[in-house]
Amino acid sequence: MPVDAQRESAFLFDLDGTLIDSVYQHVIAWREALEQVGVSLAVWKLHRRIGMSGGLFVTALQRELEVELDAETLARVPGLHAEAYARHADGVRALPGARELLDRLSEQGIPWAIATSGSERTAGRARGLLGLPEDVTMITRDLVRYAKPDPDLFLTAAARIGIDIRDSIVVGDSVWDLLAARRAGALGIGLLSGGYGREELIYAGAFRVYEDPRDLMEHLDEVGVRRPV
Amino acid sequence: MPVDAQRESAFLFDLDGTLIDSVYQHVIAWREALEQVGVSLAVWKLHRRIGMSGGLFVTALQRELEVELDAETLARVPGLHAEAYARHADGVRALPGARELLDRLSEQGIPWAIATSGSERTAGRARGLLGLPEDVTMITRDLVRYAKPDPDLFLTAAARIGIDIRDSIVVGDSVWDLLAARRAGALGIGLLSGGYGREELIYAGAFRVYEDPRDLMEHLDEVGVRRPV
Repeated sequence: MPVDAQRESAFLFDLDGTLIDSVYQHVIAWREALEQVGVSLAVWKLHRRIGMSGGLFVTALQRELEVELDAETLARVPGLHAEAYARHADGVRALPGARELLDRLSEQGIPWAIATSGSERTAGRARGLLGLPEDVTMITRDLVRYAKPDPDLFLTAAARIGIDIRDSIVVGDSVWDLLAARRAGALGIGLLSGGYGREELIYAGAFRVYEDPRDLMEHLDEVGVRRPV
Repeated sequence: MPVDAQRESAFLFDLDGTLIDSVYQHVIAWREALEQVGVSLAVWKLHRRIGMSGGLFVTALQRELEVELDAETLARVPGLHAEAYARHADGVRALPGARELLDRLSEQGIPWAIATSGSERTAGRARGLLGLPEDVTMITRDLVRYAKPDPDLFLTAAARIGIDIRDSIVVGDSVWDLLAARRAGALGIGLLSGGYGREELIYAGAFRVYEDPRDLMEHLDEVGVRRPV
């Protein structure tokens, strides 16, 4: 007698670099925000921190800096970043295949949600880019105590759509998504569309890596999604 | 009797992402230039093409695009990129340790040169950022028939400073630098400061990978540079 292995599964998506092509604009915006408080940090190091919680981002920056920043200056940085990002956001597009992938999952009745370390303020624009219906579950940084690489965002998203996190597949472009996925007990899929290298994602625990949402959509059968009969 | 293994060696440096922190500004500038001719391509794919010859860059783009661009439109793109880059170039800085590394090599009498797929027009600004003396050898795209990943830039640089390419160490942040190094018969050192992942550089043939010019400077003994007695 076969075991009942085919429990309902779900997809939990990161947003920046996973569904929308916004990572490089975020990187440049962090660069500009830090310049405004007199901090010069190499851009690739900012890139590798995108997607983690703002608090941990700032902690990580502190470690890189040779001078110590006072708390008041540090507190200004996230606001300056949001302003700088708003200046660059016009150039942000949906990633290839993002809308089609979400539509496909919906058509097949597979639950999905979005979980992002970004705030509602910056993430809200993505609703338009992706043509999301109003009732889509999107868990933003404002809604949890700890953002990635803590698992709270993905745990909250899974709970909101009524799926066991252990039956969920997390899709993200950054090491922080994949670490959060492992801590949550979910499988993690890495996408190259945020600009990390393939092996960085594998070493962070991705059980599969694709180029972008379109590439994932074309290989859904590899991750357990059957074509409708 | 020991062999005379210690022949004079030299360092051949890439510029963008290796000595100056300009890769992300170049990426955004390509994005803007392509938008102006109606082409939308995911930003990470542009990132992974930075540092290769403009002609091959455009050929590679063609392969990614679903529509074919006419030759006239394609020919406009490099000029649009240069204009867009000029708008972002104010934010470009020398990478940590770049000036100190070049000074250290000069002090120890180790020959070095710069070889970049960029044009003199965009590369010229780097002279100021790095405080380069007027007589530094800098081979730009204008001076050779084929840019990276062809070996011409590095071969020309080595010849100009009178060093056998097989005694040269190429330092670059991109896969294209390392492929060109191997084709030229030089050893290649990868730097993470252009935003590639460590393994991408190793798989492209880097015999050693460091974070940035400072990290390389602190480990020069690993690549055959002895402290002066």
